[in-house]
Amino acid sequence: MARNDDRRILLADAGVAVLARDGARGLTHRAVDREAKVPLGTASNYFTTRDLLIRALVSRIEQRLTPAPETLARLGVREPSRELFAEYLRDIVRRLSAEPEVTLALFELRLEAGRRPEVGKVMGEWLRAGFDGDVAFNSAAGLPGGRGAIALFHYAIDGLMLDRLTLSIDPETSTDDVIEALVAGLLPSNA
Amino acid sequence: MARNDDRRILLADAGVAVLARDGARGLTHRAVDREAKVPLGTASNYFTTRDLLIRALVSRIEQRLTPAPETLARLGVREPSRELFAEYLRDIVRRLSAEPEVTLALFELRLEAGRRPEVGKVMGEWLRAGFDGDVAFNSAAGLPGGRGAIALFHYAIDGLMLDRLTLSIDPETSTDDVIEALVAGLLPSNA
Repeated sequence: MARNDDRRILLADAGVAVLARDGARGLTHRAVDREAKVPLGTASNYFTTRDLLIRALVSRIEQRLTPAPETLARLGVREPSRELFAEYLRDIVRRLSAEPEVTLALFELRLEAGRRPEVGKVMGEWLRAGFDGDVAFNSAAGLPGGRGAIALFHYAIDGLMLDRLTLSIDPETSTDDVIEALVAGLLPSNA
Repeated sequence: MARNDDRRILLADAGVAVLARDGARGLTHRAVDREAKVPLGTASNYFTTRDLLIRALVSRIEQRLTPAPETLARLGVREPSRELFAEYLRDIVRRLSAEPEVTLALFELRLEAGRRPEVGKVMGEWLRAGFDGDVAFNSAAGLPGGRGAIALFHYAIDGLMLDRLTLSIDPETSTDDVIEALVAGLLPSNA
């Protein structure tokens, strides 16, 4: 059972690497086998359809982007404030930056979602659940910013990550300074 | 000569369509020929390397995204204001939305730029020239917002377009309302 789980993780990580390197069109069971250095046929044994493979990737991506429990514990005891919101945002950007393959794979999956309804279904559910989760977390934590503001942060952070992980139009400005400017501008002040 | 130019445009538009539909990995001379319904070998006759093909696509993308002269004339006579900045921004988003293939092709090219230095070079030059052009235009027009603010708008609009052209986390909010909130938050008030 544990070995089975390890194998699934190995295959899913290989899929993430393929996506980041070759794009969604390169993502085949065969490419995953090759990337994971396992016998051909292994990935399709574990994930019998491309849809199941995509689901496995998305769930692995979610794991790899999960905040560290220490961070949540450390921030969770603080009083809600704009500065605390900024801390959470910096932590998100730190996680996305520390896992460039995962973040690039997510861009590939979103573009693929626009092309293939079956990918759109999986990604749509995942994205919307994540967004609803962010809104609920923010509200439960007493942090400023409702649904509308949090959507704006999603757009800005997606664009920022695309900039930082591919070609930057403004590499002289640090990512932290960008985050500070976004919080200053987009977070409502009714905290 | 005119016929030669028409052919180049036909091929470049076919390349944009291939990029949007199949991603950067699908962009080959052969795929462009098939998409343009021309004899195999035509695209490699016009663009002897993949690099030249990419350059042709980028320059065609620029053409297809050029603002309408009427819009520039209409906005160019107005007094600079935050509202005028918002008008220009709405026009950019309108153009990107009206040409979903072009906008999706741009996302594909940016992801490819992070993978392939030769694409990175072409795209990097183009993106930075565009960004410098935006900053210079804004300043010449007496509009609020310097380099830093304009970079923030680039990030936010890229993320917004990705949202609107693939899967939206917040489809109930109109694109115009998002633009209004971005201008309210991110544009400095020293106008």
